[in-house]
Amino acid sequence: MREQAAPPSSEAVRPATFVEAERLSAKLGCDVTLAVESFQHTGSFKFRAAYEVAARVPQRKLLTASSGNFGAALARACRLLGKSCLVVMPATSARVKIDAVRGYGGAVDLVDVTTKSRAARVQELAREHPDAYVASAYDDPLVIAGNASLGREIACSGRGFEIVVAPVGGGGLTSGIVTGIRESGASIAVWGAEPLEGNDAARSLAAGTLLSNQTEPRTIADGARTVSLGQNNWAILREGLAGIVEVPEEMIIDGVRLLFLLANLKAEPTGALPVGAVRTSPERFAGRRVCCVVSGGNVDPGTYRRILEGI
Amino acid sequence: MREQAAPPSSEAVRPATFVEAERLSAKLGCDVTLAVESFQHTGSFKFRAAYEVAARVPQRKLLTASSGNFGAALARACRLLGKSCLVVMPATSARVKIDAVRGYGGAVDLVDVTTKSRAARVQELAREHPDAYVASAYDDPLVIAGNASLGREIACSGRGFEIVVAPVGGGGLTSGIVTGIRESGASIAVWGAEPLEGNDAARSLAAGTLLSNQTEPRTIADGARTVSLGQNNWAILREGLAGIVEVPEEMIIDGVRLLFLLANLKAEPTGALPVGAVRTSPERFAGRRVCCVVSGGNVDPGTYRRILEGI
Repeated sequence: MREQAAPPSSEAVRPATFVEAERLSAKLGCDVTLAVESFQHTGSFKFRAAYEVAARVPQRKLLTASSGNFGAALARACRLLGKSCLVVMPATSARVKIDAVRGYGGAVDLVDVTTKSRAARVQELAREHPDAYVASAYDDPLVIAGNASLGREIACSGRGFEIVVAPVGGGGLTSGIVTGIRESGASIAVWGAEPLEGNDAARSLAAGTLLSNQTEPRTIADGARTVSLGQNNWAILREGLAGIVEVPEEMIIDGVRLLFLLANLKAEPTGALPVGAVRTSPERFAGRRVCCVVSGGNVDPGTYRRILEGI
Repeated sequence: MREQAAPPSSEAVRPATFVEAERLSAKLGCDVTLAVESFQHTGSFKFRAAYEVAARVPQRKLLTASSGNFGAALARACRLLGKSCLVVMPATSARVKIDAVRGYGGAVDLVDVTTKSRAARVQELAREHPDAYVASAYDDPLVIAGNASLGREIACSGRGFEIVVAPVGGGGLTSGIVTGIRESGASIAVWGAEPLEGNDAARSLAAGTLLSNQTEPRTIADGARTVSLGQNNWAILREGLAGIVEVPEEMIIDGVRLLFLLANLKAEPTGALPVGAVRTSPERFAGRRVCCVVSGGNVDPGTYRRILEGI
């Protein structure tokens, strides 16, 4: 087998698109700039971590469970690096998401989650493929290292941010941002924006110990339907976060609508969590220079249409 | 009155956002990069020209007729320059558009177009305000000079474009792009994308003389509902355009959908004309490095929802 030289992450990953959101700022009462990852490869920040994982591990085969953005991101990263990728997805996944993984060259293993969990299927496949690396979408030091590039971009943007607000699901994004900002020697407060429906991270921070949701939360922010923070991420976030805003469902939806109306931006619900957080707790952000991380734009047309119906 | 120094256009205007559209390229069969103006001030390329006009004319008061993007752009430019702005709009305009002009500090004069034309109302107001400059949204050398900055950005992007495709309405954008590319010493073919429903520019090019539509065309691309090209623009376009693709309505809609699905981009129908043009005449663009200009993102939620229904 011919060894391929991996392009460095700085070439493979696209920088975030910074959008100064003048009308949104007027509405929110603070000076908002969006750090947009909707135009990242595969349409979300997940490619940053997926590429880092796929490039750094020695295995030529990667295996992961994902119903969303990480699967597509890992598939594209593996194709770029000449590796193979197998993504376990629920059989009920939206066709558009299955097609995205396949379109980026990934193999898809569909599992009937009413008879077998995704985790159980991943374990089965890991036994069948002992040479494969089992990649977590969030709980892996390489994931944090990959996402740190976004923190560095925010710190080095020359925009004088006082606060960054980013979505919290498994915590891979926020722990990466905290790490990247520290590496840059900058001092910017990092706030998490978490769905109130699945507020394990906020409860963990309050309790000082890692807590879980009883079940996968039923929030519209499908990128934040995690049962708990990753262990690696918690170690960073427990002292690295300035705080977490718990965002009610209606404020997540409001965030998607405001991004559409006042910033011409198509955001997925998870990506609108930070704007929803500012709407939820405006007093925390009033008059400050705030960077809201719009983590991705992959929302299916039906969901998006229903969200726009209320305007 | 205190004279204000006008910020140079290079500081007041935002550069276009270039998005390499990998999945869209695979679908269209050519190497597509989007030059996106949806994140320009006021959400469309119109701010480039509006700022140039407002900054260069000596008058402190500007008057224009616009039902859409130019009014908002001129209002914001005038506010920035400490000038006043009056925009004549049909009384039937969408509330969101009237609010946008007012939000940027412009005064709005609503006219009942069933009893008086917008042009007639502008003439009335021009007599009432002899000190005002009556600004055309497209037929003015200053408009071309303002839009030329986008041509320079495209030429100097280092992306090796062979072809640029941009929407054609009154011709202000394409004549600006042709001018800017020439100023940069680059050689890139500029194609126009015009609604088939209002194909006056395509017919003019074929006839070698400036022709008009009988009435304002009823295309969904509301930025291209012009009766004819401007005289100033025609002088440049008659020999500056490589050609014009006439885009059927269903291909304009298809363009909006493809930008949503494959590039995470909210585009207004006029902004999707270039992608619609590549879909309409794929053989002209096959395998080439193509820059599609997405001229703006200001589409109201109801229209956008109806467009997404077909996916």
